[in-house]
Amino acid sequence: MEGNNQPVVNLISKPENMLKTVYTACRTCYSADMPINIYNSTDDEAKMLKLIERVISSGHYSTIEHIQISFAISNVSRACTHQLVRHRHMSFSQKSQRYVKEKGQFDYIIPPTIDKDPELKEKFIAFMGKISEQYLEFVEAGIPAEDARFVLPNAAASSMVASLNLREMIHLANLRLCTRAQYEIRMLVKKMCEALVEEEPWLKPYLVPKCERWGFCDEDKSCGRKPTKEAFLNVQPV
Amino acid sequence: MEGNNQPVVNLISKPENMLKTVYTACRTCYSADMPINIYNSTDDEAKMLKLIERVISSGHYSTIEHIQISFAISNVSRACTHQLVRHRHMSFSQKSQRYVKEKGQFDYIIPPTIDKDPELKEKFIAFMGKISEQYLEFVEAGIPAEDARFVLPNAAASSMVASLNLREMIHLANLRLCTRAQYEIRMLVKKMCEALVEEEPWLKPYLVPKCERWGFCDEDKSCGRKPTKEAFLNVQPV
Amino acid sequence: MEGNNQPVVNLISKPENMLKTVYTACRTCYSADMPINIYNSTDDEAKMLKLIERVISSGHYSTIEHIQISFAISNVSRACTHQLVRHRHMSFSQKSQRYVKEKGQFDYIIPPTIDKDPELKEKFIAFMGKISEQYLEFVEAGIPAEDARFVLPNAAASSMVASLNLREMIHLANLRLCTRAQYEIRMLVKKMCEALVEEEPWLKPYLVPKCERWGFCDEDKSCGRKPTKEAFLNVQPV
Amino acid sequence: MEGNNQPVVNLISKPENMLKTVYTACRTCYSADMPINIYNSTDDEAKMLKLIERVISSGHYSTIEHIQISFAISNVSRACTHQLVRHRHMSFSQKSQRYVKEKGQFDYIIPPTIDKDPELKEKFIAFMGKISEQYLEFVEAGIPAEDARFVLPNAAASSMVASLNLREMIHLANLRLCTRAQYEIRMLVKKMCEALVEEEPWLKPYLVPKCERWGFCDEDKSCGRKPTKEAFLNVQPV
Repeated sequence: MEGNNQPVVNLISKPENMLKTVYTACRTCYSADMPINIYNSTDDEAKMLKLIERVISSGHYSTIEHIQISFAISNVSRACTHQLVRHRHMSFSQKSQRYVKEKGQFDYIIPPTIDKDPELKEKFIAFMGKISEQYLEFVEAGIPAEDARFVLPNAAASSMVASLNLREMIHLANLRLCTRAQYEIRMLVKKMCEALVEEEPWLKPYLVPKCERWGFCDEDKSCGRKPTKEAFLNVQPV
Repeated sequence: MEGNNQPVVNLISKPENMLKTVYTACRTCYSADMPINIYNSTDDEAKMLKLIERVISSGHYSTIEHIQISFAISNVSRACTHQLVRHRHMSFSQKSQRYVKEKGQFDYIIPPTIDKDPELKEKFIAFMGKISEQYLEFVEAGIPAEDARFVLPNAAASSMVASLNLREMIHLANLRLCTRAQYEIRMLVKKMCEALVEEEPWLKPYLVPKCERWGFCDEDKSCGRKPTKEAFLNVQPV
Repeated sequence: MEGNNQPVVNLISKPENMLKTVYTACRTCYSADMPINIYNSTDDEAKMLKLIERVISSGHYSTIEHIQISFAISNVSRACTHQLVRHRHMSFSQKSQRYVKEKGQFDYIIPPTIDKDPELKEKFIAFMGKISEQYLEFVEAGIPAEDARFVLPNAAASSMVASLNLREMIHLANLRLCTRAQYEIRMLVKKMCEALVEEEPWLKPYLVPKCERWGFCDEDKSCGRKPTKEAFLNVQPV
Repeated sequence: MEGNNQPVVNLISKPENMLKTVYTACRTCYSADMPINIYNSTDDEAKMLKLIERVISSGHYSTIEHIQISFAISNVSRACTHQLVRHRHMSFSQKSQRYVKEKGQFDYIIPPTIDKDPELKEKFIAFMGKISEQYLEFVEAGIPAEDARFVLPNAAASSMVASLNLREMIHLANLRLCTRAQYEIRMLVKKMCEALVEEEPWLKPYLVPKCERWGFCDEDKSCGRKPTKEAFLNVQPV
């Protein structure tokens, strides 16, 4: 696994007719027509997109909850997944360290600040070897995997299937593409966005850090990319 | 609309590969393999079904959250939708009485106890006519639709796009197919289940009232179809 | 009930030690100390407030989820409660029209555009009387309350106990104090905010319409109180 | 921390008037009276308890969502907290390994299967020392805490403030008091239940493993304490 610290992300599932479903949802709110008639009478992609974009811009995000997307994710650290599972609107099926016993050297992620320093990197890799030995020694002594894993590090790689709706996807991007998010989860979410945009290019403008969406930064320690909220609220158009 | 009191339900959206996605989620928890490899290496439908059924039977419902389904619903009363939107794991886009102005007689639902009595039914229909007149009078007097609608009845028909994941779908069926649920929502959920089972017959055994799932009834006033919880807990196998 | 169209709102429950709980939550994230020690060692209200305000300003709202507040609400229309129960992070116990039979004239809400026009108001009140008569006629004919209520209007008054955490309370205020929200729910949420601010004055700056929080308006049709998002994003401080 | 593997749990916050709030919520559903009047007119504890118990037994759990409880938790492993934060109806503020730098030997939890074997225990403790050395070496080399922590083990102790409503508390107990749950989270949830029952003894009968609630076990591998679901459904009272 050395030399490959990139999350592996594949979009494995989305609705058959994403645009049409969101369009029908948007129109249902404002129409006397039956939703099934709205659904059946529309195929003009440009017209659908125009309406959807107006609705999202107005902040009426509930209409995009109808769309759910699933990703197959692997090669991310347990440090990263402990952050990701805090997104309570998402659904997760994660590889269990209780039930899946490691049989040799476990896979792991090297953080970039260590990865770029050859000496530290060597130490890191050697130490992962020692942890593996200690883990396997406990397993051989009859300790169940769920307890032996207490020595496994945050760096240990994990896998999951993760699903979320389009509203949460935009929220996830807004939060985790921010430079204040940790490097690994930023990289992971970036890859999720890329995989989605490849199939649905119209979503690109929404899958951005929150400062792009609001025009200002509300973080306590700003990266300076956008003005702070305070600076921003003092300069208002007449 | 008289004479047609049935909810209209169409399944308009589901993932392209429902079984494969759930199967990948189930296996990811217990496998050392990458989820994308699990996903790509499986096509044996019988094998997938067998695993999924075992996982659902064990109550590990999180694996079926990955699947979301959308329905186009119409011809249901506002009484019914006020109940349905209490399901907080669902997503709704409902026809707005604030923004959609009624132009003539509004559509409405006749409750079955009234529908089956010709005299009461006639009165009901006549009264719907009076409400419509009063509504239109207010609108003509310049009252905005959002205020004129204060005279509209619970019987007024509504439309919506409603989405939910498979876990919530089973929960919805467990709760709302119970004979203690109101007639209209029971009919609506029954039609949602039928529309889903038509496409995914393997789901049929799970889309049942809660008493079928548990073997007993926990309602305060039981319909008698299954023994009460108390009776049940007193008879245990040795 | 005529002449009294105001929602009745009482704050009936909140944690014994709101500030201290939020403070402990905020500090736990950044401290090596045990949360129970943080909790026991703090009583300096000014210090607690300062930290909490900094954390909320930075958008780290999860720390205020620990606080839940309950309101007793009555004299609101079913039109209004159908909107309110769409807030899926809230908990509701609402008076049931299925189980509570109206015995005489039901209570109702008169929308302000009708209330201020004596002639229309008289018509509205007379019509509520007619609806009541029709409802009672059905009940006397043996129709169960849950079906007779199909003639009851959106104007019919309802009651509920509603609970929400502080994060959702701020979100609710941001959305429903906006002048684009319907009059009645705006009045209701205003009263909820006032009841809370009376007990916890430090919360006042957060219980504002979203445009106050962001500096701009993202509604499709703006009331003009704040610049539109587009206008705002074009004027950025250097 | 050696020799002390017990979670530390303190109940730090609950509503001022738990019983009265739940009682008011239950009664509001079935009463023509205003909730604030129900609230003000009741103080008979035995009467309140009787109603609440009937409502919970009938599975109408929404009425107990109004009550939220907060716990200060410490001395639990990161393995345990990664499980706990999967409860998506809970709110968490957890000690950050990104922002809180360890300055000497980090605290850790020894799993009981290792703790009871003196030889393995000694190895475990020695290895925690080695991990600490490696962590501190990275920190001294200028690696930020958020990356150095990649070597920290699942055994590392964590702290949090965790809040949940009464419905989720019962659900948490039902799931995590099951002997199939991992030892540490079972101990943690047991302590949470004990802390709550000490203040609210009437809750004791509900804070039990799911098999006690249902009368049967739905786990794939049952501990045998209760009959399996299959065995149970075959023996029904006449």
